[in-house]
Amino acid sequence: MDYYSSQITKLIETLSSLPGIGNKSAQRLAFHIVNMPQEQVNTLVSAISEAKKNVQYCKKCFTLTDQELCPICSSTKRDEKTIMVVENPRDLAAYEKTGKYEGLYHVLHGAISPMLGIGPNDIKLKELMKRLSEETVEEVIIATNSSLEGETTAMYISKLVKPTGIKVTRIASGVPVGGDLEYIDEITLLRALDGRVEL
Amino acid sequence: MDYYSSQITKLIETLSSLPGIGNKSAQRLAFHIVNMPQEQVNTLVSAISEAKKNVQYCKKCFTLTDQELCPICSSTKRDEKTIMVVENPRDLAAYEKTGKYEGLYHVLHGAISPMLGIGPNDIKLKELMKRLSEETVEEVIIATNSSLEGETTAMYISKLVKPTGIKVTRIASGVPVGGDLEYIDEITLLRALDGRVEL
Repeated sequence: MDYYSSQITKLIETLSSLPGIGNKSAQRLAFHIVNMPQEQVNTLVSAISEAKKNVQYCKKCFTLTDQELCPICSSTKRDEKTIMVVENPRDLAAYEKTGKYEGLYHVLHGAISPMLGIGPNDIKLKELMKRLSEETVEEVIIATNSSLEGETTAMYISKLVKPTGIKVTRIASGVPVGGDLEYIDEITLLRALDGRVEL
Repeated sequence: MDYYSSQITKLIETLSSLPGIGNKSAQRLAFHIVNMPQEQVNTLVSAISEAKKNVQYCKKCFTLTDQELCPICSSTKRDEKTIMVVENPRDLAAYEKTGKYEGLYHVLHGAISPMLGIGPNDIKLKELMKRLSEETVEEVIIATNSSLEGETTAMYISKLVKPTGIKVTRIASGVPVGGDLEYIDEITLLRALDGRVEL
């Protein structure tokens, strides 16, 4: 691609190595960046550098934070007897957006996947068990994804936690709100049937 | 969004101000960046800063380059009697990728759009006319987009250039190769009909 200058080519290559950014988007972004006012470029560069420099795992729940403890773990208003286990910080954010969950979280940073060679020791599972032995937890809500890996992880955690006597629950699987039965896959339909509740 | 750390929130906001990056992609990118090795983050940051610092318009054709003249304008192998007029550097790159065009380019950096308040003076049109009066050009190929703005710009340029006696041509508009007539809009079909060539 010598019809671009080498600096542009390098920027395009670097950008297209990011997830979800293909070659076309990278080109578009690169030209946009070059045409941005210097001030905006500085903001972008410093946002990236600062986030990388200061963001780390929360010592307790392992979500990303720029403090020792994340705002949720350090809050005094949360119900410390409940821990919701999620795969990643985005899932935590998804539940926080509902504004209804008042317990704490535990971020695994992944799910068990024999296919990808990710075992129980590659995710923050030991850390979860350590928390359960140190804190006074009454319920562990497993909110891993409803995928093969998420389900495997849920099963694994439930087997680990049950012997401790702590209640283990799994978020419900079924027809999403607004979902049209006609377009929903059979497994979900069967799950929804199995999980039916009395009205 | 105080369930993320402020640095992450800031990075997400900055990223989502870029074109084609919505809030979900920005979240995904931000978490990816925070988890990238420091070295890769440095590469990304320096690619952005360096491109912004060093890339400028080619003095002759106004494409983006880190030299005084772009590789195409400074090449001795190009046919200097032909200038292809394009809206932006990505369009130039699209034609360069064909490897078949041997002339020079002129990048307008936009198209005339009364709707968006972009007039002839807002694009590199005076600069084109200056080149035509100084260089020995025999043909101007107008390769602006086949949109309302692109067509308007093509008409405008053709009216400006014709009195100088230089040949003005427009790239063909018609059914794209591999295109299925059934799915092609009527205007394109009529254009293709109007532009039919003898076999």
